[in-house]
Amino acid sequence: MSSSNMVSNLSPLSLLQAPAAASHVDTLAPVVLALAVILAAAKLGGDVAERIGQPAVLGELVIGVLIGNLPLVGVNSFQFITSNATIGVLAQLGAVILLFEVGLESTVRDMMHVGFRSLAVAVLGVVTPWALGWWVGSLLLPNSSVYVHAFLGAALTATSVGITARVLKDLGRAQSPEARIILGAAVIDDVLGLVVLAVIAAVIAAADSGAAVSYGSLALVFGKALLFLFVALSLGVVFSPRLFRFASRLRGSGVLLATALVFCFVLAWLASAIGLAPIVGAYAAGLILEDVHYRDLSAKEDWRLEDLIRPIADFLVPVFFVLMGMQVDLSAFSRPEIIGLAVVLTIAAIVGKQACALGALGAKLDWLSIGIGMIPRGEVGLIFANIGLGLVVRGEHIIDSATYSAVVIMVMLTTLITPPALKWSLSRREAGSGKRVTGTG
Amino acid sequence: MSSSNMVSNLSPLSLLQAPAAASHVDTLAPVVLALAVILAAAKLGGDVAERIGQPAVLGELVIGVLIGNLPLVGVNSFQFITSNATIGVLAQLGAVILLFEVGLESTVRDMMHVGFRSLAVAVLGVVTPWALGWWVGSLLLPNSSVYVHAFLGAALTATSVGITARVLKDLGRAQSPEARIILGAAVIDDVLGLVVLAVIAAVIAAADSGAAVSYGSLALVFGKALLFLFVALSLGVVFSPRLFRFASRLRGSGVLLATALVFCFVLAWLASAIGLAPIVGAYAAGLILEDVHYRDLSAKEDWRLEDLIRPIADFLVPVFFVLMGMQVDLSAFSRPEIIGLAVVLTIAAIVGKQACALGALGAKLDWLSIGIGMIPRGEVGLIFANIGLGLVVRGEHIIDSATYSAVVIMVMLTTLITPPALKWSLSRREAGSGKRVTGTG
Repeated sequence: MSSSNMVSNLSPLSLLQAPAAASHVDTLAPVVLALAVILAAAKLGGDVAERIGQPAVLGELVIGVLIGNLPLVGVNSFQFITSNATIGVLAQLGAVILLFEVGLESTVRDMMHVGFRSLAVAVLGVVTPWALGWWVGSLLLPNSSVYVHAFLGAALTATSVGITARVLKDLGRAQSPEARIILGAAVIDDVLGLVVLAVIAAVIAAADSGAAVSYGSLALVFGKALLFLFVALSLGVVFSPRLFRFASRLRGSGVLLATALVFCFVLAWLASAIGLAPIVGAYAAGLILEDVHYRDLSAKEDWRLEDLIRPIADFLVPVFFVLMGMQVDLSAFSRPEIIGLAVVLTIAAIVGKQACALGALGAKLDWLSIGIGMIPRGEVGLIFANIGLGLVVRGEHIIDSATYSAVVIMVMLTTLITPPALKWSLSRREAGSGKRVTGTG
Repeated sequence: MSSSNMVSNLSPLSLLQAPAAASHVDTLAPVVLALAVILAAAKLGGDVAERIGQPAVLGELVIGVLIGNLPLVGVNSFQFITSNATIGVLAQLGAVILLFEVGLESTVRDMMHVGFRSLAVAVLGVVTPWALGWWVGSLLLPNSSVYVHAFLGAALTATSVGITARVLKDLGRAQSPEARIILGAAVIDDVLGLVVLAVIAAVIAAADSGAAVSYGSLALVFGKALLFLFVALSLGVVFSPRLFRFASRLRGSGVLLATALVFCFVLAWLASAIGLAPIVGAYAAGLILEDVHYRDLSAKEDWRLEDLIRPIADFLVPVFFVLMGMQVDLSAFSRPEIIGLAVVLTIAAIVGKQACALGALGAKLDWLSIGIGMIPRGEVGLIFANIGLGLVVRGEHIIDSATYSAVVIMVMLTTLITPPALKWSLSRREAGSGKRVTGTG
């Protein structure tokens, strides 16, 4: 027992705290305090955002940025939140629940209708920013190696679907064809982005060690990743009704919610086991589940699944957004050369994703909203930057701390710009051709 | 960034996994898998328990014991669950939500009606098992020091209110006067138990070091602890309506749930800050909140708070019970001398708590159910045993591993015995004098 050594040398007085400390105070206490701070901040930030006509999620992000940067003015009271590992996992769990909830609002059949279009949007949305980022990198950092340029481009490829999903949900547009194209494309993006990163990283690792890159094994992993969604969606549609038919025979309360969560968590785990982000599996799980699968269970317990998932989402999703805001370091803004690179990268990131709109051409779709919806890089961009920090070619770090800060600022700006921009583009279209758009939802 | 070193030496192929691994796979993936296993196991165990007429919680505990002891038959697949720190915190969070939910079903006014009776029940329920455990210890372990005997007694004092609260909830009896006396007494027990432990530990520490025990400082902490509930309940009743009146003016969705959770988490944190278990604060928060405080907010969002908390409880509470079962080590049963001590300790633990019934004499109350409801030691008893493992007097461990196992078995038996016993005693009374009991709920 790890607590035994801790306790043995404490004074009598501190022992009154120790019984709890041994099991839950030094783990649970900071977690409940952090959750209280995050939930309070999220609701206050959301309130201010809605008062100025913006989606609540923007308020959650901005208040996160403010709290996270309080150390700049000497206030370190909230640093325990970002350093708490459990809060980090709860934030990721919030992203999983959010994508599951968003997925629940569509069906696999809906996705099929936008599938090829999503693929076109995703491929354009990966290739264009990558090329653009590579080119911009070679212009601004002429002394860096080609690997740095290629990596900067790769860091611009991923789409963080969380922000867009939340904005679409806040605006009641999560079921529009545009939303499905964006979310479908973001899921494919996640796969493509990881492959791009893997290819770049493989080339860099080969350059560093002199070893040959095994394109065969890369192709294998690439295939595995693409197969996952296909297999998960095909098998899931067959398996899900059986699972819920079995569950409907179980006694006890809360079976509907538990079964749905088990399904979501298993797919999230399978996705991560195959090398994808768990949110991909959660989104797939949401897509697969249809009302008709759990109709019996829902009738028996007299609850709709959406109403059972929503409180869990209301609890965990703000943790994800506030924490993402808190991880933004505003002090990087004080270095002009970083600002320059960051601004150019941000423009490349925004312009690059507008190529996605080309994938929506020809259909009567809101192509501007699709392009804007693909802008945010969010946590996926940060993950890319993180990986870059660890890559070395013959002693040269692929991403040094200045470039890293620029990438972080790019991630932040693309993330902050999306909610108001998307709200504007969606309402612009709604004002222009109101009834038709609402009718397609 | 901790991930950067991890990644730099990976092969190209494993890098496809790395982007995720850097942020969420090696933290989130085992968590979602563990949650899927726990929720599936809980619902299957609950189903079996209900089919044989027992509360679902017994099934969750037993299936936890079974899964946790699979290594005894060579299956180690589920060990990642008990070793995962986040799952441990989520289990504790489940206990917090459970106590909050149970507290919500009563009001402070209800508690006042049973307050003095709860105090009498609690004091009897602490003093009697302590004396009995001390005496039994001196009989069975004559060669051990008086400290060991005193500590064994102390390990019998605490009441784990989680099991009883859940059984009462499962049987729809959480609002009966007996339930309030039991839950109120268990809250007071938690305070008294920690004080007993602190006194014992202080005496032992003094004996080990030769230093004098400061009874003044002990009294100070004792007073602080008792004051907490009084102050929290008094101030909370004044503050809570204002908090919800403020919250009702906030825009955005999910404000009612977020405000209630913030209130619960802040009180749980305050309780732990003062040296009490966080669940004490969560229960106090539930007691304080009354429908009338959040009537406006509830009307605005068109949801009852109970219906918003229940899905979160359905998600997290089973984690607590399955994990508690998993931590039971059945292999300790193979040592006869441990069995002997364990059986005697268990009898002392059960008989000792029946003294609680004396506190209920004179009123038309189900005194047998009160005595039985106080039996389970649960995680609090395990915490006590843990602390004992770390206490040393001149080289002698106060609790060696054999005694520890006996205490763990006692905790397990008292925990497993309570659901069926409580169900029996409550239904016995209901059958005997049906209408009157239901009428008092």
